[in-house]
Amino acid sequence: NPSMSRQSGKSSLLYLCSQHIKTNQTLSISLSPLNKSGGESLTCKFFQELVNILMDYIFKSNERSSKILDFHHPHQLKEGLEGFSLDLPDHPEPLEQILVDCRDTLKYGVKTGHPRFFNQLSSGLDLVGLAGQWLTSTANTNMFTYEVSPVFLLMEEVLLKKMQSIVGWCEEEGDGIFCPGGAVSNLYSLLVARYDFYPEVKTKGMCALPRLALFTSEHSHYSVRKAAAVLGMGSDSVQVVPCDERYPSPEGLFGLVPFYVNATAGTTVYGAFDPLTAIADVCDRHKLWLHVDAAWGGGLLMSRRHQGKLQGIERASSVTWNPHKLMGAPLQCSAILIKKRGLLQECNQLCAEYLFQSDKHYDISYDTGDKTIQCGRHVDVFKLWLMWKAKGSEGFGSQVNKCLENAEYLFKQLQRRADFKLVFESKPEHSNVCFWYLPPSLRGLPPGPDTNRRLHEVAPQIKAKMMEEGTTLIGYQPLGSNVNFFRCVFSNPATQHEDVDFLLEEIARLGSNL
Amino acid sequence: NPSMSRQSGKSSLLYLCSQHIKTNQTLSISLSPLNKSGGESLTCKFFQELVNILMDYIFKSNERSSKILDFHHPHQLKEGLEGFSLDLPDHPEPLEQILVDCRDTLKYGVKTGHPRFFNQLSSGLDLVGLAGQWLTSTANTNMFTYEVSPVFLLMEEVLLKKMQSIVGWCEEEGDGIFCPGGAVSNLYSLLVARYDFYPEVKTKGMCALPRLALFTSEHSHYSVRKAAAVLGMGSDSVQVVPCDERYPSPEGLFGLVPFYVNATAGTTVYGAFDPLTAIADVCDRHKLWLHVDAAWGGGLLMSRRHQGKLQGIERASSVTWNPHKLMGAPLQCSAILIKKRGLLQECNQLCAEYLFQSDKHYDISYDTGDKTIQCGRHVDVFKLWLMWKAKGSEGFGSQVNKCLENAEYLFKQLQRRADFKLVFESKPEHSNVCFWYLPPSLRGLPPGPDTNRRLHEVAPQIKAKMMEEGTTLIGYQPLGSNVNFFRCVFSNPATQHEDVDFLLEEIARLGSNL
Repeated sequence: NPSMSRQSGKSSLLYLCSQHIKTNQTLSISLSPLNKSGGESLTCKFFQELVNILMDYIFKSNERSSKILDFHHPHQLKEGLEGFSLDLPDHPEPLEQILVDCRDTLKYGVKTGHPRFFNQLSSGLDLVGLAGQWLTSTANTNMFTYEVSPVFLLMEEVLLKKMQSIVGWCEEEGDGIFCPGGAVSNLYSLLVARYDFYPEVKTKGMCALPRLALFTSEHSHYSVRKAAAVLGMGSDSVQVVPCDERYPSPEGLFGLVPFYVNATAGTTVYGAFDPLTAIADVCDRHKLWLHVDAAWGGGLLMSRRHQGKLQGIERASSVTWNPHKLMGAPLQCSAILIKKRGLLQECNQLCAEYLFQSDKHYDISYDTGDKTIQCGRHVDVFKLWLMWKAKGSEGFGSQVNKCLENAEYLFKQLQRRADFKLVFESKPEHSNVCFWYLPPSLRGLPPGPDTNRRLHEVAPQIKAKMMEEGTTLIGYQPLGSNVNFFRCVFSNPATQHEDVDFLLEEIARLGSNL
Repeated sequence: NPSMSRQSGKSSLLYLCSQHIKTNQTLSISLSPLNKSGGESLTCKFFQELVNILMDYIFKSNERSSKILDFHHPHQLKEGLEGFSLDLPDHPEPLEQILVDCRDTLKYGVKTGHPRFFNQLSSGLDLVGLAGQWLTSTANTNMFTYEVSPVFLLMEEVLLKKMQSIVGWCEEEGDGIFCPGGAVSNLYSLLVARYDFYPEVKTKGMCALPRLALFTSEHSHYSVRKAAAVLGMGSDSVQVVPCDERYPSPEGLFGLVPFYVNATAGTTVYGAFDPLTAIADVCDRHKLWLHVDAAWGGGLLMSRRHQGKLQGIERASSVTWNPHKLMGAPLQCSAILIKKRGLLQECNQLCAEYLFQSDKHYDISYDTGDKTIQCGRHVDVFKLWLMWKAKGSEGFGSQVNKCLENAEYLFKQLQRRADFKLVFESKPEHSNVCFWYLPPSLRGLPPGPDTNRRLHEVAPQIKAKMMEEGTTLIGYQPLGSNVNFFRCVFSNPATQHEDVDFLLEEIARLGSNL
């Protein structure tokens, strides 16, 4: 009887809401049969109000006059501001309070989609990407088997193939997987490379292997070193290549067996590109695995104007590429691409028959769960797929161009101003622009350790004020012999020249009495 | 001039939509100044239509008469069904098409929230949890530093403390982190345990250590073995303890140094609980690290009626607990809890000063990015926090009780029926119920290899038909000497007795001619 079945089933998913109707929104959860008349409409009302809160937040994030953050110290938030309590209750709170909690959570958070948020490599809020995330959450499944994720697993294949062809690999090459972030993608590259050279490591461990060495540049991401520690190779196995010297020959490492080189395409701070072709030549000569960490730089491949900066990437054995950075996909969306097909599966599979049955009636090559070091995997692909539909490859290209154009605009403004100093005099390669602000008291001082010591304190002081004001947000750091400097990065295509102008004026304003 | 600033800023975030207005929805993306009049209203309209699609899906998932899946083979979906193309275009598609793509994606997917979906340990669709996910996506930040995630990092602390106190650790104990899934949580436990015994592993690698051994039961999750392979210990270092024997003394392993025991609280297939207290005694005696993998069983701690099944868990050095399983949080939501404070940070930190500045103006102990093996981390905590507000601890308890009550109901129905056979005659410990269906042709046959061989083929055949029909979904697997059997698990509190009845009738119907 379908009509009866429909009736009794109608509100079963909705019990969370309907129980609030039944119990006058204060009593504990009841799991008895539900109020059939009110469930759907209350659910709709609840989500409508939620969407209003979220849209309101989106529009506010996008108003330049809105604050990016309303800073409070941890202890202030923990004490409970204006009734916003983080404590977990024993008894349920009414749905109205849940909506208030949502509003408060956003209120005390950071508007990463604001056009004046320059703090991270990931910024902006792509609305089609966001729609993709909402759908993903609603579908609530994971990338495990074709049985529970048919569409998403195929989308992953389509995306990986597209990205592999953009990297420049041929039809027969290429494998990969979407991972929870670039650090995990880099870890996969090292894991798979080790297995490719020494498959016995899977069962026998590092004890069965010679002592390995891998190479990475001074300015590469720290996740390479972290991965070496996690994988039981030890961080000492990482040979850090200084950035201002010629790339050294790996033979120099007595007693260690070099097998892996990480080259960075777009470093975190400077946005610099390692010379991929020259490194690939070294790797060819010595038969080393070449990994290109293009977590940040990969997006440039979408732009005809800038893709040449990654020339040589097609020679990589593996590539990390995070669409959640320059391509603006919502967090998280990171891919590890591996040239040699089958390796990922061989390296990681344990063939637990109780999880991956081989007697299924469909093509089980899409049951990717055993390729990963995770078991269930979050669906990170749909938002990117949907964005690709909405923009096309060329749309990503324009977006990337826009970000680099903003960087060039900032670079030119900095060249012209006496109260700022560029870390590099040459045009930025990526959208990173690094600079110092020179407060009145430091202008005209002779360079030297004393000036540097004082300059080192400028950025943290301005940043502290900036967080209190909440009008814009930018990161700073020291690096090598350079004392604390600001790093501006552009990944939000909503940012305009006026925002760049605002940033400089704001830094000058906040630092004027230093 | 705030009003001008407001005006020019208004639609910058919305360029993705407004460009469609400007270009008549077919031309390529323009990044020039935007149509200021239409942006917000088009955005609202787009999201309103999206929400309609999603709510429609939620209500359909909840109607018992709806199909759980509309099965198609990979090649069918890849060829493009009724205009649903997975291909990635060069040029943008109009927003109307994006909405159609969303509808199609859901149409060909699997309704994991359907009350008759019994296929995975994670099922159901908690609406407050879903609201939490939508907000998380909209906030689009990551768990890296307090600077970009003040509220979410504090919520993580509150949740971890609560979970630690529920596990039974005292105020001064306890650390942890939310991870992308239980397999990663288990990997963390092994990583941190190894570091605790042999801190030199971080820099020197496994070569500097004796050959280690760890113990886990035959029925434990395969992720423990996977973690041993990833960490460079090798899967051979894993000593698998048979499940029907007494827990062996670790001294028996000549030449290996035992250091870690994984005990499972709620095995994947049988839902069985290892004897935690007895294992903790062995670990105490031999000074071993005791990890309890309560990914699936942890939820029982929320129920006064069932928490006793995890007695002894308070003696663990680390615990994996996945609220995305029995507690119904949307995917993913998994925690690794570690008793000894500070270890996680010491084990994983690399102190990259350019990422984790120590000269900030706030309490940097909340900058958790260096505690993890990831760099950025997805915000997995907010949905759980919001659910906790909406249900209270007691609400989780009722929900868990309801799932176990459904399991008991199924168990009783199976006891009464001659066409089904239970794998275990005793009452289930968790919500897993394992059984065979005996088709007419097999009833009354003498037990033996021939009957077993034929019985082994029954579940896959029924499952294949079930996927074609799409009326319900349940998993099967062989395990040890048991040939293919069905495993029913309950984690969706929306499931009622009538759904359990339906499942058995449907299996009997689909298998009636076997």
